[in-house]
Amino acid sequence: METAHGTVKTPVFMPVGTQGTVKTLSPHELTEVGSQIILGNTYHLYLRPGHQLIEKAGGLHKFCNWNRTILTDSGGYQVYSLAGLRKVNDEGVVFQSHHDGSYHELTPERAIEIQMSLGSDIMMVLDECPPYPCAEVYAAESVERTTRWAKRCFSKFRESKPKFDYPQTIFAIVQGSTYPNLRESSLESLRELNFPGHAIGGLSIGEPKAVLFEIAEFCASRLPKDKPRYLMGMGKPEDLVKAISLGIDMFDCVIPTRNGRKGQVFTWHGTLNLRNAAFKDDFRPLDETCGCYACLNFTRAYLRHLFQADEILGLRLGSLHNLYFYHELLATIRASIDNGTFNIWKRNFFDKYESKHH
Amino acid sequence: METAHGTVKTPVFMPVGTQGTVKTLSPHELTEVGSQIILGNTYHLYLRPGHQLIEKAGGLHKFCNWNRTILTDSGGYQVYSLAGLRKVNDEGVVFQSHHDGSYHELTPERAIEIQMSLGSDIMMVLDECPPYPCAEVYAAESVERTTRWAKRCFSKFRESKPKFDYPQTIFAIVQGSTYPNLRESSLESLRELNFPGHAIGGLSIGEPKAVLFEIAEFCASRLPKDKPRYLMGMGKPEDLVKAISLGIDMFDCVIPTRNGRKGQVFTWHGTLNLRNAAFKDDFRPLDETCGCYACLNFTRAYLRHLFQADEILGLRLGSLHNLYFYHELLATIRASIDNGTFNIWKRNFFDKYESKHH
Repeated sequence: METAHGTVKTPVFMPVGTQGTVKTLSPHELTEVGSQIILGNTYHLYLRPGHQLIEKAGGLHKFCNWNRTILTDSGGYQVYSLAGLRKVNDEGVVFQSHHDGSYHELTPERAIEIQMSLGSDIMMVLDECPPYPCAEVYAAESVERTTRWAKRCFSKFRESKPKFDYPQTIFAIVQGSTYPNLRESSLESLRELNFPGHAIGGLSIGEPKAVLFEIAEFCASRLPKDKPRYLMGMGKPEDLVKAISLGIDMFDCVIPTRNGRKGQVFTWHGTLNLRNAAFKDDFRPLDETCGCYACLNFTRAYLRHLFQADEILGLRLGSLHNLYFYHELLATIRASIDNGTFNIWKRNFFDKYESKHH
Repeated sequence: METAHGTVKTPVFMPVGTQGTVKTLSPHELTEVGSQIILGNTYHLYLRPGHQLIEKAGGLHKFCNWNRTILTDSGGYQVYSLAGLRKVNDEGVVFQSHHDGSYHELTPERAIEIQMSLGSDIMMVLDECPPYPCAEVYAAESVERTTRWAKRCFSKFRESKPKFDYPQTIFAIVQGSTYPNLRESSLESLRELNFPGHAIGGLSIGEPKAVLFEIAEFCASRLPKDKPRYLMGMGKPEDLVKAISLGIDMFDCVIPTRNGRKGQVFTWHGTLNLRNAAFKDDFRPLDETCGCYACLNFTRAYLRHLFQADEILGLRLGSLHNLYFYHELLATIRASIDNGTFNIWKRNFFDKYESKHH
């Protein structure tokens, strides 16, 4: 995938940089662990420090000193999950800031304006993400609204001139809750609009894993294969491997960084909880085969000590290692796809990854 | 100053690595900002993870992956400032852990044993650091005890074989509160013992700055000039400059890292508080002339945003910049001493540093 800030090799995992920083890490470290693209949260950046300030700074890339690709969400998801009182109607959504209770309105046009001020390479349309479970009749209305909003976003995008000296692009989002017929209708309407890329939204919000994969497969198989297919908000390493086999190209998730900050790290044999007393005098690295700064320089015993002592270096090294692992995982998968051995690789991966810890 | 882990150019500032990590920073970053030597706190490391564990790891250098010089304190100061119930007698001090209330005893011999397990390059004797203010009669007793303990520490040190394959050394500590006659008697007794280096303890504990400098000057001028003179627990940049002009060679202090974590950064023009609204849209670096990673890559506006949003990257960059500044300050001073321009340099420094912000 080509963007104004470089080539993104897919399938790709995007670390989440909620507030203009991937928690605990520097842009230099992100580059070193192999991040090709990061995600910024429009809701957070709009409220603080404000999109006008970021525009004044020269855009989000300059503001946070990240010169590779950035994807921003529309802000919609956080409005539904974080904001206080919120009211959705056809025009858009009115919500209260979770910081100070102030009122704000997000419309499809406004979501694009804000993302153009941020200057992200890939913008997302404003959608409505209904909770799980959701009655079919509401989900149906919501899909229609999401389609109308997608049209308005795309129009706004096409009639706007970029604020910076590079082009941006825009992806649509398929909704429809857990109803295949609604998913079908959502993605058919969006296909007609001919967006440059598509996301599958409304999953990883509490539904059973089997349902998630059923809907993801249903959508992935029906979305254009020559355009990126992005499964929003997922997931664990084993989930990514499964989703890639269904045709998914892009992922974002807070798991590697959030779990890393809690002392849960991923290895090729499964997960380790660094607070575990078993690691007290374990002088091996997290993963013998890992080439990250944490594994090359520190032992499990030292990392456990950092977590026991609530030292920030522990949060950093946990996050750094996990992102390195995710990016290595995806790089290995890309190589196996290139040389036609993905299915063999996948079997081997699960033999090693699940046998010891699941 | 030569140690088993390299040459330390003096005067030198030692970042404080309380729990086996200089808060928020990696050893790689410490090397990059120019740290030549760091301080470890014996009290903290003894309680958690325990000196036996660190010995098993191959010593503190290996445990925390720092291959330059390490100085450890004796643990005494934290016993007086942090521990619960504590009882000092001539044998040593019994105290309760601030973690779990468990009882521990620290004697001069034990303080050396622990520091030998840690494998620090420079060990400190166990001293008694009386509070400020302190009655002269108590201060006098305390000086005598500190001298007796210094002898016991030195004997223990001389009769012990290092646990690792490199030599360690040991410094004495001058006490005597704010009484010049007691300071005189303390340093005279210690001079006779012929320690390889001397520290001035019992200052920076609440006494007026004028008293601090009076006592520091008194001691510095009477301690052997051919051995390192270390002023414990100080200070701000302007304090270091003044103390160096009195002959001090070594400093340690939490100010650059602690203040950096609070958003207070040091520049050649004075301090900045990054939470200040004035920096909201200030797109300049912290210090135009600084070469640290924070100044080369980020604006005051972005750093302010990180502090407003409670992002860990802010704590990291504040700490990193401040240590870089401290090390640059000391490197500049060393160069001015080498070419005989320290007094001119000092005048210029205070013209620039104090005029705008003090």
